[in-house]
Amino acid sequence: MNDSESVAKLRLIRSENVGPVTYRQLLQRFGSAVAAIDALPDLARRGGRNLRIASAAEVEDEIAAVTGFGGQLLFIGSEHYPHLLAHSEAAPPVLTVKGDLGLLERPAVAIVGARNASGAGIRFARELASGLAAAEMVVVSGLARGIDTAAHWGALEGGTIGVIAGGLDVAYPPEAADLQAQIGERGLVVAEQPFGTEPQARHFPRRNRIIAGLTAGTVVVEGALKSGSLITARIAAEAGREVMAVPGSPLDPRAQGCNQLIREGATLIQNAADVIEALGSFNGEVGARFAVADAHDAAPQLALEADESAHAAVQALLSPTPCPIDEIVRQSALPSAIVATVLLDLELGGLLVRHAGGRVAAV
Amino acid sequence: MNDSESVAKLRLIRSENVGPVTYRQLLQRFGSAVAAIDALPDLARRGGRNLRIASAAEVEDEIAAVTGFGGQLLFIGSEHYPHLLAHSEAAPPVLTVKGDLGLLERPAVAIVGARNASGAGIRFARELASGLAAAEMVVVSGLARGIDTAAHWGALEGGTIGVIAGGLDVAYPPEAADLQAQIGERGLVVAEQPFGTEPQARHFPRRNRIIAGLTAGTVVVEGALKSGSLITARIAAEAGREVMAVPGSPLDPRAQGCNQLIREGATLIQNAADVIEALGSFNGEVGARFAVADAHDAAPQLALEADESAHAAVQALLSPTPCPIDEIVRQSALPSAIVATVLLDLELGGLLVRHAGGRVAAV
Repeated sequence: MNDSESVAKLRLIRSENVGPVTYRQLLQRFGSAVAAIDALPDLARRGGRNLRIASAAEVEDEIAAVTGFGGQLLFIGSEHYPHLLAHSEAAPPVLTVKGDLGLLERPAVAIVGARNASGAGIRFARELASGLAAAEMVVVSGLARGIDTAAHWGALEGGTIGVIAGGLDVAYPPEAADLQAQIGERGLVVAEQPFGTEPQARHFPRRNRIIAGLTAGTVVVEGALKSGSLITARIAAEAGREVMAVPGSPLDPRAQGCNQLIREGATLIQNAADVIEALGSFNGEVGARFAVADAHDAAPQLALEADESAHAAVQALLSPTPCPIDEIVRQSALPSAIVATVLLDLELGGLLVRHAGGRVAAV
Repeated sequence: MNDSESVAKLRLIRSENVGPVTYRQLLQRFGSAVAAIDALPDLARRGGRNLRIASAAEVEDEIAAVTGFGGQLLFIGSEHYPHLLAHSEAAPPVLTVKGDLGLLERPAVAIVGARNASGAGIRFARELASGLAAAEMVVVSGLARGIDTAAHWGALEGGTIGVIAGGLDVAYPPEAADLQAQIGERGLVVAEQPFGTEPQARHFPRRNRIIAGLTAGTVVVEGALKSGSLITARIAAEAGREVMAVPGSPLDPRAQGCNQLIREGATLIQNAADVIEALGSFNGEVGARFAVADAHDAAPQLALEADESAHAAVQALLSPTPCPIDEIVRQSALPSAIVATVLLDLELGGLLVRHAGGRVAAV
């Protein structure tokens, strides 16, 4: 684990402005993380600003802390990195995990829902999770109050994965600490943020993307219109995963999001058998079902260098409104490798932010 | 109304063993009801048994009673007979109605559901019906306890049709008497059974068929698995009408039928707007949307007579298990007009019963 390439990989990931796309591009361009980390200061200078590069000591401390906590780091492309997640857009370059890695090999389904769930909803989520776990499915959720917590408890015996917004050692909300500890022992806790990170608002949508990305499908149990659970379901749909929802009375605001999903084509779920039926063709061949490009392989090739005029042309096309990279290539009439190189420079320089769907915006 | 052809039509309909198919075949074969009623005794004798033929006095009494009650008779093929219902399989040859015939010209939707409905379900049905009536849709239901009653009250101002299982003057359940009287004044009451008939168990499925047949679609509000409301919904689906259902918690047995319908493809309904959207393409051109054969025109031609050997061949193929007439034609290798004639004889003779889907069985 503590070899120089792993240390260099983690330094890249923990450096300022290095997102998942840039991480993959740098590895491709320089052939190794060790070579990329050496080149990083020069690249960032071209982008226009100084870049804070994570030091070797810093990431060695992180690795030691994770290991001391009983956890480990999974780099994308490594043996245990979850296969389905690797096929998602913006798969995290590294995950910090604690618990039973074997759960990542089994078919998994997400159960998410309202934090202010009703008693009936909590009971339903717990029984649904228990039934799915009994059928050898791993239940993935986000350790939030309400439905998430009920789903984890219901599946704790059979197998559950808890994806958290902060670092591996940070429980949020605080009352989830006991559940998180138990999942770390009997299930698997997964974190994208570095060890010790307190979760911030922007980390929760990323947590939701990982939940959707880890699973063959997402079941929403109680969710209002415009709730976070619905966003998770829509991310799952966009990734080609199954979307399922538990209906409720139209008079119950907590059911309106679920009912809306069903109107949009989500499968109506009444019990664990309905979920298993919906995912029937999925189990065992999770990779084969999705014809999405492998995000790890699909990063565009970079040019060796982009000149000043290319920089100026690309920057002129950027605005705070996210724009597809394809569009920038078309409008600039530059080779895509040149555009990719400029975008990398700008991102490292802190002048560019990447959005879902291969879109970029000026900061 | 009291002309000799109308009297003869009603005599045919009210005679023993004359169902909707036979009625149409007899009118086709003999050109008029007056001629058919004259031929009926001979035909029945060929079928094997004596047939009780309704007398002129008997049906003149019925017409007088209906008229005295403020009602009237609508024969299939006449101006006011509801167009959509005429396109349903086994459309009743005559309806007894009381109230506003103009309602039969407007787009209509059925709202049906559990008799033992919850308070929330009753409130929902009433508000849904009220919203639909406000949008100029006629709400059709069956005057049963629970959802039906709530739907009628909700739509009473805007327009509602109550289809009853017994005669026009008979209220069932007894507490529906006030509602039925009000619908007779401000809406429209429709009955298939003769004036004065107490409803029997076998009349309720026929009532449900009329509800489905009169409407562009059926909304089920609360219904258990295997409930009558689900049967109405399935009849609507078979007739190419829209099927809609209001979801509920899987923990509520009264929602399980609705949830099942949604799983099978029914549109999930949360409010009147959802119903109007689902029926959007239907309004105004109710006839054009369905490519089903016009049941009134599609009765098979009859042969002038079928000989003994044809009778024997067809009878040998009949059993108490309903069999498609097409199959009997194929297996007997007889012309379809001959088979139709034998079946007519057997039905009039009380030896044959017709089932939905053009199937027949031995009695």
